[in-house]
Amino acid sequence: MPKINADRLLSTLRQFAEFGRYKTGVHRPTYGEDDMASRHWLIQQYKMLGLDAHIDGVGNVFGYPRTSRRSLLIGSHAESQNHAGWLDGAMGVIYGLEVARTFAETNDCQDLPIAPVAWADEESHFIALLGSRSYVGDLDDAELDAAINAYTGQPLREALRKAGLSGTPRTFADPTRHVGYVEAHIEQGDYLESIGKRIGVVTSIVAIWQYRVVISGIQNHAGTTRMAIRRDAGLAAARLAVLIDDRFPEICGERSVWTTGRMTLEPGAPSIIPGRAEVLFQIRDEDEAVLQRMHDRLEQLVEETRMASGCEISLERIAKGQPGRMDAAFQSAIERAAQQHCPGGHVKMPSGASHDAQLVARKMRAGMLFVPSIGGISHHWTENTEDDDLVLGCQVLADAAEDILRNDL
Amino acid sequence: MPKINADRLLSTLRQFAEFGRYKTGVHRPTYGEDDMASRHWLIQQYKMLGLDAHIDGVGNVFGYPRTSRRSLLIGSHAESQNHAGWLDGAMGVIYGLEVARTFAETNDCQDLPIAPVAWADEESHFIALLGSRSYVGDLDDAELDAAINAYTGQPLREALRKAGLSGTPRTFADPTRHVGYVEAHIEQGDYLESIGKRIGVVTSIVAIWQYRVVISGIQNHAGTTRMAIRRDAGLAAARLAVLIDDRFPEICGERSVWTTGRMTLEPGAPSIIPGRAEVLFQIRDEDEAVLQRMHDRLEQLVEETRMASGCEISLERIAKGQPGRMDAAFQSAIERAAQQHCPGGHVKMPSGASHDAQLVARKMRAGMLFVPSIGGISHHWTENTEDDDLVLGCQVLADAAEDILRNDL
Repeated sequence: MPKINADRLLSTLRQFAEFGRYKTGVHRPTYGEDDMASRHWLIQQYKMLGLDAHIDGVGNVFGYPRTSRRSLLIGSHAESQNHAGWLDGAMGVIYGLEVARTFAETNDCQDLPIAPVAWADEESHFIALLGSRSYVGDLDDAELDAAINAYTGQPLREALRKAGLSGTPRTFADPTRHVGYVEAHIEQGDYLESIGKRIGVVTSIVAIWQYRVVISGIQNHAGTTRMAIRRDAGLAAARLAVLIDDRFPEICGERSVWTTGRMTLEPGAPSIIPGRAEVLFQIRDEDEAVLQRMHDRLEQLVEETRMASGCEISLERIAKGQPGRMDAAFQSAIERAAQQHCPGGHVKMPSGASHDAQLVARKMRAGMLFVPSIGGISHHWTENTEDDDLVLGCQVLADAAEDILRNDL
Repeated sequence: MPKINADRLLSTLRQFAEFGRYKTGVHRPTYGEDDMASRHWLIQQYKMLGLDAHIDGVGNVFGYPRTSRRSLLIGSHAESQNHAGWLDGAMGVIYGLEVARTFAETNDCQDLPIAPVAWADEESHFIALLGSRSYVGDLDDAELDAAINAYTGQPLREALRKAGLSGTPRTFADPTRHVGYVEAHIEQGDYLESIGKRIGVVTSIVAIWQYRVVISGIQNHAGTTRMAIRRDAGLAAARLAVLIDDRFPEICGERSVWTTGRMTLEPGAPSIIPGRAEVLFQIRDEDEAVLQRMHDRLEQLVEETRMASGCEISLERIAKGQPGRMDAAFQSAIERAAQQHCPGGHVKMPSGASHDAQLVARKMRAGMLFVPSIGGISHHWTENTEDDDLVLGCQVLADAAEDILRNDL
């Protein structure tokens, strides 16, 4: 039985948070100095465990066990959002390191190979899920050539060059090398906290379908244009957002979410009736049938809004993701381990946020577990998780890893 | 009976449109070279009629008759919106000139004094209705010192200096000098066109009450935050705009208008639930009792939205204008003249747009007439009015002016 070292885990997590420390969180954008220092530090730690460690051409760090036996890949992403939390991504990376350390020092686990991994740029400084997309072969050179930093405009190629990664080959998924991939992550929501559970066994990672809605009305004088003849694009946008919120509950799934994140009225002057409005809208669910129902209803509500407003409306789906299904046997292994360490304190749940596991799941079996986020806060430097939950999550992960590797689930 | 010279009117209108010509419209921002050239040209024309012409410290141009008898002030504003129409303001200015010319050459009208006027910056390049606000004493030096150009940021004082107006005194309304003020303007809406009328007799100029609504919700992750616990400031803003549009008809007046011109969601990212929204909203009506009913209803709907959304909402009235009542005798004079020249082709109506007449009406009796805008278009270089309507409007104005002055209405 692998018994993790709780003190070592917590001190390593805090040590890792020194890379780009910001208040009680971190500021560690992808390929920046702090990010690259943290990746080279990981390579050192992997090597000290006797692993064959390397960084690939997009910054992913791997620690391969020196064995012909298939290993279990464990990790998450190492960089952070700007001025954000210390655990988002980093926790899963350090869990991978701690499980590898524990297995290396546990007699009956030394033959169970753990391959820790740290993905790059899950957090979209350049490309969302860059590292895991590259790993599964979903990212071509043209996209890498075109990418720029969303905040600074720096070209990705320049950032990679400055990070010393130009000419370094990318590493692609080799399913014969690994049994599968397990990722631990903070929940980033308040679901676990709200129902008093400590471990979330992830069933799937929701797909995101994203839309751009462009509404064309007639721009006119807000004083001289009678209400009866107006074609107010801004009001039509507001009507659509409200209609969606009123009518989606009729067809959505239990944990579907939808968000109107942006709504722009043009010209945006107090005395001019908006002639044009642009809306960014997204839906998320783990079930593609539910997503399709929401999509169909959206088309219907756009049509209703068009008829009611007299405005032209174009609806464009700009992203259509696929849900990432977590492996059933991996889910069971995580659940058994959770039941042992906190009986009744775990729950199956989908992930509403994207994670590297949804990409890796395209190439091999994958599993995920969540620990609670205090107050549901993430992407902010106040993000945190109770120490006891941090320790519990890693122990559950270690036990599940043993189960998976020993019983070849 | 004054008979205007239709050919001279139309050619003078076209000549005036050469100052800052842009496509079929004009680009003549306040105090720019073209605007100042047009004002100095007006002074020349006024002088050629024997008038005592001067430009005041904010660019208003007056042509005072050399008589002790009280004159009728006739005009509008000379500058244009950026890249806008050739008639908005300019038409009323040239009508004033044409009526003065006609009276000067009409034997039985030579003793009826017409004082043409051209106001400055009604179009808000620096301060909305700047010239007429200055004239009625509603603009202090501190406001002039602080004003900057809305498009270029140039300080008003610098613009006045470059225009050669520094040190020139401002002219203030002297009610003993004038019988009153009459302004002709394009309608800027489609009401006249829609009911097949050619002259609008303005009953009053609506007041504008303007609001800033700030909605504070909770910014959160659009994937991990369940619908049930969201406090979506953007959705609350949309709900408020729709509620207003659904419920204002219960209490508004026949020609009330309301407009949500701007709606800003923050941070405006597709995967983040908006934590803050800001809305600019305005109402217009000619009746302060109706405005008060709309104001009360707005407060009620803000409260309903607050309760339904769980968001905090602050409602701030940032402008509370007063309606400008047009003089009843002046209305009758315009109506009689219109009935003579186009029987049944005129209608009484409020003005939904602001005009210099609403300011001048605070100091003396005032009247206004509208001619149709083709397609209701204004503030755009395609703005236009049929030549026949341009001629008719000026003739009606001339006859009404004679009526007012001869009968001392």
